Amino acid sequence: MTLVIDCHGHYTTAPAAHNAWRDAQKAAFKASTAAPLYPAISDDEIRETLETNQIRLIRERGGDMTIFSPRASAMAPHIGDEQVAIAWARANNDLIARCVTLYPEIFVGVGMLPQNPAADLRGSIAELDRCVNELGFVGCNLNPDPGGGYFKSPALTDPFWYPLYEKMVELDVPAMIHVSGTCNPGLHATGAYYIAADTIAFMQLIEGDLFRIFPTLRFIIPHGGGAVPYHWGRYRGLADMLKQPGLDTHVMNNVFFDTCVYHQPGVDLRADVIETKNILFGSEMVGAVRGIDPLTGHYFDDTKRYVDALPISAEQRHAIFEGNARRVFPRLDTKLRARGL
Amino acid sequence: MTLVIDCHGHYTTAPAAHNAWRDAQKAAFKASTAAPLYPAISDDEIRETLETNQIRLIRERGGDMTIFSPRASAMAPHIGDEQVAIAWARANNDLIARCVTLYPEIFVGVGMLPQNPAADLRGSIAELDRCVNELGFVGCNLNPDPGGGYFKSPALTDPFWYPLYEKMVELDVPAMIHVSGTCNPGLHATGAYYIAADTIAFMQLIEGDLFRIFPTLRFIIPHGGGAVPYHWGRYRGLADMLKQPGLDTHVMNNVFFDTCVYHQPGVDLRADVIETKNILFGSEMVGAVRGIDPLTGHYFDDTKRYVDALPISAEQRHAIFEGNARRVFPRLDTKLRARGL
Repeated sequence: MTLVIDCHGHYTTAPAAHNAWRDAQKAAFKASTAAPLYPAISDDEIRETLETNQIRLIRERGGDMTIFSPRASAMAPHIGDEQVAIAWARANNDLIARCVTLYPEIFVGVGMLPQNPAADLRGSIAELDRCVNELGFVGCNLNPDPGGGYFKSPALTDPFWYPLYEKMVELDVPAMIHVSGTCNPGLHATGAYYIAADTIAFMQLIEGDLFRIFPTLRFIIPHGGGAVPYHWGRYRGLADMLKQPGLDTHVMNNVFFDTCVYHQPGVDLRADVIETKNILFGSEMVGAVRGIDPLTGHYFDDTKRYVDALPISAEQRHAIFEGNARRVFPRLDTKLRARGL
Repeated sequence: MTLVIDCHGHYTTAPAAHNAWRDAQKAAFKASTAAPLYPAISDDEIRETLETNQIRLIRERGGDMTIFSPRASAMAPHIGDEQVAIAWARANNDLIARCVTLYPEIFVGVGMLPQNPAADLRGSIAELDRCVNELGFVGCNLNPDPGGGYFKSPALTDPFWYPLYEKMVELDVPAMIHVSGTCNPGLHATGAYYIAADTIAFMQLIEGDLFRIFPTLRFIIPHGGGAVPYHWGRYRGLADMLKQPGLDTHVMNNVFFDTCVYHQPGVDLRADVIETKNILFGSEMVGAVRGIDPLTGHYFDDTKRYVDALPISAEQRHAIFEGNARRVFPRLDTKLRARGL
C-alpha cells in the first residue's frame, strides 16, 4: 500500500474573515493604530472551505494527505514591520493548525515564518519553534527573497541564514524554499517570480558550500525545481566550471524537487534526469493554475496523473508518493507510525 | 543542403586591448576625465582570437555560420552614464563588424544597445540604426533589465519600449532578449540571472498584448527559453487563467527559442512541446559552459549533437538549422541570397 502524500499545498481558500483581518491589520499599521482582535472563525467555516476545495480534489484525484501551509502569495513579510509580520504568521499558522486538528488524517502542517526584511531571524526562529513544538508542524516555508521581487536578500548560502538553519537542524525539519507575492510589477507571481526564485536558489546552492556546514539540512525546491531539470546539463557544467564537486554529492543529498510541473513531458524529463530519491509528489493545489488542459481534458495541476503515467517501477512510485516525504519530513513519519502506517 | 546557422554566439574572446580599454573607460568616468582613444587592434589579433576559438569549434562541430554579437556579460549598460554606454556599445559593435568583414562567410553581426537605465531609448535607437544601416547587422540584443540584476525596468510590454520596437519593425530586425552581467551578488550570471530573465520575459509577454500592437515584432528568448518549455503546461494554464488567447496565437507567432540547452533530455523536451517553427539552432559558444560532459565525452555546449539526435524529419532539422533563422532574420536571408545560397 502506498499513501499519496502531496508535499505542496497552501491554504489558498482560507475563510474571508481571515483575509479581512489581514486588510484591517495592514490598515491599522498604516494608521499607526492597534490591529483589531483576530475574528472568531467557526470550525464549520473552515470545514466548508476545505471540503469544497482541497479535500474534494484530494478524494477525486486519489490522494491521501497534504502537507499544508499558509497561502504563499499572501505571506508578504515585507508589509509593515516585524510585529505585523509576526502577528500575521501566527494567525496563519494557527489557522493551519486548526485545519490539521479538524482533519488529522488528511493534513499535516508546515509553517510560514515572519521574515520581515528589516529584522533579523530571531522572530522567525521563535515562530518555527512554536510551529514545531506547540502546533506539531513538520517543516517550514523559507522565503529566499522576503523583500518581494527585487532579490536583495543574502544568498541562501550566506551566514545570515545560519541561525535559522541551526534551528531547522535541531528540530530535524526541512524547508520548502518559496517566495511570496511580488511587489515588482514586472514579475508575475506564479508565472515569473516563483520559477525564477526556484532557479536562483538552486544556483546559489551550487556556488556555495552550505551542506558541508549543515550536512543534514534539507530543502525542497518547489515547482519542479524551477528551470533546473530542463537545464540539468547547464548546472552540471557550471558546477564543473566553478570547480565544485558533482551535483550528486554537492547538492542532491540535501535538495528535493516536487512534481508541480503541469504537463506530462515536463514530469517525464524530471524523472529522466533527477534521481527518484530527490522527487516528492506535489501539486500546489488549489493554486497557481486551476483550469482544465484542453489537450488532456484533465486539470493542469492534477499532477498525480503525470506521475502515474511515468514508466517507473512500483518501488520508485512508492518513493515519490510516500517514502521520500517520510524521509525528508521525519516528524511526518513519526506521526504516521503513531497511526500504525 | 542545409546551412548550420548558430543564432547565439558572443565575442567572448575579444582581444585583451579591447577589454583593457573598457577598464580605462570606466576609470576615466570615475575620475571625471576623458576616456583614452580606443586602441589599435590589428586584423591578425582579431583573426587569432577567432581562429583558435569560435571558428575552430564551428569547424570541429560541423557548423557553417554564427550570428555574432558582443559579449553579453560585459554589456553592463548601467556602468557610467549614457555617454559611457554609447561609447562602449559603439566600440563593441565596431569590433563585431570587423569580425564580419574578416570572415563574411562565417559571421553575421548583431548589435548591443547602449541601454543606460538613466536614459531614454534614443541612444539605443540611434545605435540600432547605425548597426543595421552602416554596419550591415541583422538584429540586436535587447536587455530587459539594464540595471543589472534587480528587475526594476518596465516590463517588455510597457510603452516605454515602443519607440525601439517601432525602429525594429521599420528595419525588420529581431531582438534576442538577453540580460548582461549582474551586480546582484545573489544572482550568478549564467546560472541564475540569464535563466530567470528569460522566464520572466516570456511571462511578461503572456500578461501583455504586445504582438497585437506590433504584429511583426520578433523576439528570440535564449537559453532554450529559460524555464518555459519545461513548464509549458503551467504557461498554457496561466494564459487560460489570465483569460488571454492561447499561446500559439498570443505569443508564438513572434517568439522563438534557441537550442542552448546543454543535455539531450532538455533538447528532446523542447522539441516535444515547442513547434519546430519556433526553434532556432544556437549554442552560446564560447560561453557559459565550456567543459566536457563526463556522461557523453562531448562538450556540454556542442548543441548540434543534440539536435542531430532528435527524432525529427529532415525538413524539421533544416528549419531548426537554417530555415527559421532566415525567416526570423530577413536581412540574413538577403545576404545569403546575394551569395547564391
